[in-house]
Amino acid sequence: MINFADISSAYNVLLPVINKTPLLSSRTFNEMTDNEVYFKAENFQRIGAFKFRGAYNKIASLTDAERKSGVIAHSSGNHGQGVALASKIFGIKATIVMPHNSVKSKVEATKGYGANVIFCGLSTDDREKTTQELIDKHGYTLIHPYDDEKLIAGQGTVGLEIFQEIKELDYLFVPIGGGGLISGCAIAAKHYCPSTKVIGVETEGANDCYQSFRAKRLIKLSSVNTIADGMRTLSVGKRNFEIIMKHVDDVITIKDEDIYSMMRFFFERMKILVEPTGAVAPTAIMKNILGLQGKKVCAVISGGNVDMTFFKQLL
Amino acid sequence: MINFADISSAYNVLLPVINKTPLLSSRTFNEMTDNEVYFKAENFQRIGAFKFRGAYNKIASLTDAERKSGVIAHSSGNHGQGVALASKIFGIKATIVMPHNSVKSKVEATKGYGANVIFCGLSTDDREKTTQELIDKHGYTLIHPYDDEKLIAGQGTVGLEIFQEIKELDYLFVPIGGGGLISGCAIAAKHYCPSTKVIGVETEGANDCYQSFRAKRLIKLSSVNTIADGMRTLSVGKRNFEIIMKHVDDVITIKDEDIYSMMRFFFERMKILVEPTGAVAPTAIMKNILGLQGKKVCAVISGGNVDMTFFKQLL
Repeated sequence: MINFADISSAYNVLLPVINKTPLLSSRTFNEMTDNEVYFKAENFQRIGAFKFRGAYNKIASLTDAERKSGVIAHSSGNHGQGVALASKIFGIKATIVMPHNSVKSKVEATKGYGANVIFCGLSTDDREKTTQELIDKHGYTLIHPYDDEKLIAGQGTVGLEIFQEIKELDYLFVPIGGGGLISGCAIAAKHYCPSTKVIGVETEGANDCYQSFRAKRLIKLSSVNTIADGMRTLSVGKRNFEIIMKHVDDVITIKDEDIYSMMRFFFERMKILVEPTGAVAPTAIMKNILGLQGKKVCAVISGGNVDMTFFKQLL
Repeated sequence: MINFADISSAYNVLLPVINKTPLLSSRTFNEMTDNEVYFKAENFQRIGAFKFRGAYNKIASLTDAERKSGVIAHSSGNHGQGVALASKIFGIKATIVMPHNSVKSKVEATKGYGANVIFCGLSTDDREKTTQELIDKHGYTLIHPYDDEKLIAGQGTVGLEIFQEIKELDYLFVPIGGGGLISGCAIAAKHYCPSTKVIGVETEGANDCYQSFRAKRLIKLSSVNTIADGMRTLSVGKRNFEIIMKHVDDVITIKDEDIYSMMRFFFERMKILVEPTGAVAPTAIMKNILGLQGKKVCAVISGGNVDMTFFKQLL
């Protein structure tokens, strides 16, 4: 299992290339929720989401020979863009396997960073089969979206930045997809401020980690149904789950419909664009699922890559 | 004419109540424009625009008797909201005179801060007549939207914050409506870094200050036509023009149509919401009106209060 030193090393690697994202706050939101709330704005990260951190740290750790052969990732969203941009910076070849029904803007963005996009079927099996075939044929190195130590260490720098700026927190809310972000952030939180309660947040329609956390064993869902596309993993990773069981204090869920009001608040009151997955952890504070009062809390906004057609409908 | 000491005093008054807004940057925008560009994000200010600063500083300077009688402002937009919120904080009565065709969301926001909204006709004469009648009847104190020393000192704290964070700049771009923001910012800029060129930006359809600056006398337009509603003043104020002639290096114009691409860039790439007037100064950099290269430049984003119907159309 990785520890804080791995996150600290990752930060040295990342510092020249990432955006140090701000902690935002809103007097209105504080009054609404009766807590002192900070939002870690990873929607301002390069590629518009935290995923760039882990992808870059992983690619930086490859051997010259591995980098020369190129890398591959399967992703319908931000991980693919993170790998694509990190590869572009290193000047290496990236292949991103995307479901054939992927949102056009995400395909364009991934191509825009110079990656080669290969389409596949919609199931996880399809994705993995297509990816494995390309690896066998070309010798690419797989950049896993969450179950990887270098990747987790990179995502953990989100937590490192929060505590470097804010020192102490009562609660830290982090969204859970595959578990890369929360496992890294939990290690950083417990390093800087062991009393901070780290709370994972999922949507009700993709509550695999909520179930796994209670069962104390990794549960894999057969299907998920949520607007938060970053949550559509059937289970968290093995490495991630180990860290979650050790460092995370609770996992809770919120409703998809509440994400919309949170996104609207961000847009109309705070003037920032947040994607559905990015609004999941803040929604847990807005709906005050834990009944907190007078606490110093932070929620990670994981990203801001909203499909414009969807966003127009939301407005 | 006010000087930097007035701005510094205003900052002491404002510090407990304002948001210290961030300087944002974008690697993509820097590459596109071949300059090192910072955006002062006053769309993150309370009420969503810089106007809160000046309004609060002015109301803070009133006598107890004046505050007890209440204040009045005429505004279809952000100034009204600034006066309304500042008045709410001081616990005094505010009356805002708004044209009867004002955008509903702005009327609601102004009322939301507890102000009494009175509607009037569309012409400047109508507004002033309605306002004067209310002053005569109730003894309200007028909070002018730009031609006022306390107000200018308050808006100047935008410039103070920029230079406290960034120390040196080659160019500072500021939008010009009535001239409150640019006159305050120019005084701050020349105090901290006399070599900084301060550039005022207007839209072609509301280029009164562009004309006045060249003619070296205050020119009043008979009409204006621009999407940037904060620019729809027929001339800058007398006090503002004096400061502009002393401290501003040039006034330039941009086209309305270019504002849209700048707003889109802010939204899609930087994940922030900027109103048309707020995008005017950044547009001058995007279109590189001055042909700059390798310069350290900053543009003030004056606000982020976009009407949602308009924004949907833009998307």
